[in-house]
Amino acid sequence: MPEISQIRFPGAQARRFVAAAMEKLGLPPADAAIVAELMTEAELQGSDGHGLIRLAPYARRIKAGGVNVRPNIRVVKEKAAMALLDGDNGMGHLVMQRAAQIAIEKARNCGVAWVGARLSNHAGPASLYARMPLAHDMIGMYYAVGNANHLPPWGGLDMLLSTNPIAVAVPAGEEPPVVLDMATTVAAYGKVKAKAQRGEQMPVGWMIDRQGNPLTDPKRSEEGFLMPIGGYKGYGLAMIVGLLAGTLNGAAMGSETIDFNKDHASVTNTGQAIVAIDPNAFGDIDEFKARVDKLVRELRASERMPGVERIWMPGEQSHAKRTASERDGLALSPALLAQLDTVAHDLGIPNLQET
Amino acid sequence: MPEISQIRFPGAQARRFVAAAMEKLGLPPADAAIVAELMTEAELQGSDGHGLIRLAPYARRIKAGGVNVRPNIRVVKEKAAMALLDGDNGMGHLVMQRAAQIAIEKARNCGVAWVGARLSNHAGPASLYARMPLAHDMIGMYYAVGNANHLPPWGGLDMLLSTNPIAVAVPAGEEPPVVLDMATTVAAYGKVKAKAQRGEQMPVGWMIDRQGNPLTDPKRSEEGFLMPIGGYKGYGLAMIVGLLAGTLNGAAMGSETIDFNKDHASVTNTGQAIVAIDPNAFGDIDEFKARVDKLVRELRASERMPGVERIWMPGEQSHAKRTASERDGLALSPALLAQLDTVAHDLGIPNLQET
Repeated sequence: MPEISQIRFPGAQARRFVAAAMEKLGLPPADAAIVAELMTEAELQGSDGHGLIRLAPYARRIKAGGVNVRPNIRVVKEKAAMALLDGDNGMGHLVMQRAAQIAIEKARNCGVAWVGARLSNHAGPASLYARMPLAHDMIGMYYAVGNANHLPPWGGLDMLLSTNPIAVAVPAGEEPPVVLDMATTVAAYGKVKAKAQRGEQMPVGWMIDRQGNPLTDPKRSEEGFLMPIGGYKGYGLAMIVGLLAGTLNGAAMGSETIDFNKDHASVTNTGQAIVAIDPNAFGDIDEFKARVDKLVRELRASERMPGVERIWMPGEQSHAKRTASERDGLALSPALLAQLDTVAHDLGIPNLQET
Repeated sequence: MPEISQIRFPGAQARRFVAAAMEKLGLPPADAAIVAELMTEAELQGSDGHGLIRLAPYARRIKAGGVNVRPNIRVVKEKAAMALLDGDNGMGHLVMQRAAQIAIEKARNCGVAWVGARLSNHAGPASLYARMPLAHDMIGMYYAVGNANHLPPWGGLDMLLSTNPIAVAVPAGEEPPVVLDMATTVAAYGKVKAKAQRGEQMPVGWMIDRQGNPLTDPKRSEEGFLMPIGGYKGYGLAMIVGLLAGTLNGAAMGSETIDFNKDHASVTNTGQAIVAIDPNAFGDIDEFKARVDKLVRELRASERMPGVERIWMPGEQSHAKRTASERDGLALSPALLAQLDTVAHDLGIPNLQET
């Protein structure tokens, strides 16, 4: 675990800081506030790889002209239960928040709705958007094409696929919502980088080398690939998610994907999709939520394997983290604080501590 | 591999035989023909665990009164882009063929549609239904709650989840459609039984015992559980699929699941769902198909690992099998032929060879 600073920051302070940075980078205040809200939300729920750590790379890309800070996000195709958004190369957070709003509205009328986006950008953790319908007592699903390819087709060597994530959020009654947020690879690439930083070996199963042998030294990660979950099944899932979130929307997929770690200026044409499902169309919403509660409690009460202290539901740990960090504030590592100080200095705004 | 008979049966002969059996079991001729068509289709595409091998257990369940042979399958909830079917405990094939028809019709108007079912039954391979929208140039998705629990929650010992499958079918242009059909476990339970029959060991990763150690002797399979793909990720996926296909529809989930191998008479209240997405709502269908072709060709042309002869797309092997078995007829194992002979004898109908 990285060292954690003693200082804790209320979410509101982080929000103000990110909003100030985004405004300074050229976003209109209302848009800066949305991006700040969602990036802070990611940090609060413990998606630290998608939270404040992204401010520096977002700032770098915006300065390089790789993101349109004043996009005209618009519906280019529409039917009763679907819409296709052109994100006009704006921040992905803005595009997908809009997509979620449209999906929720259409699902209220039609029972279900699907909204895709092209010309979007990285939008943070998938669960942020899958969770948006929850406030309307709806189920949310989210698919995205990742912004760097780390996965070859099964049996292949060319990295043509990304860790294309899936997130699904299901409302419960008294229990926290069930929120699955998963990459289609065994480990996300960020976990490999973290192992390398700490000088640790990776477990067998995370990566393989070009001969198909297990690769466990994270310093050699450039010599191999991430393993898809369930082998060829995860490969198929990554491809399908890419077809639904990318190809269907006319967004980048396969070799068209821009590696946003290496290319800061090209339009990524990122594709994402959100689905909203209204359980109230299928029956009484309270009965549905009671059935979800019953299932959650039954799974949690299962007899446990030796050494297992608790059975967790998908998203339950993030939910607990969010509750704790809202109460106690955000604990940020000294490395992240230093990075945020650099961003503040470069932009000529007060740093997080002074915001 | 099981021994294969020299005799090959045209698909049409298998269809006539299954239809005769279903009629004799009490299904109206039109319904018997649909079930026969879909069971034969499963066999033709190589889903042999879901094809003709199911005739004997279906017959047993129908005779035990576990299936309604004259169901009143009806829409009980409906909005522009969704419907909920009550299958009235009919054969799952009839319920889900009807669900697919409704989803396709609604997606044509709304762009996307979702149709769930409760009080359905086992319907064969998931891909059969995901593929139905393909004939209408649409994408199909299918979710189902499996009919026997083989999976505990992650870290648990109580088998409360099934191998709940997901299938997605995406139309292509000149290439075969991309068809993913996967259980959320590393291996399906049928594969474990096949290993036991052949006296072979299972690879590490298929099953674990109650202490969490790898279980590789398929004869000891009752002492352990199937492993979900990607560990806790596959557990989450199995739960989410169950929530979408079961809980949302008011169908059985968790401890409510009836094990259809052990209980032949109780109503299973099986839940399934199908989604149809019309790519023509998102843009020009031919352009979409051309983009799918481009992606397929790019993945297939990837440099390969040593020893890998070909990179396969999801569903490409089933597609090739279907083409071959339509041309050459179905090759059935002597064990399966003997089983079908017994069914024919019990029902007093001509056996497959004489049909």
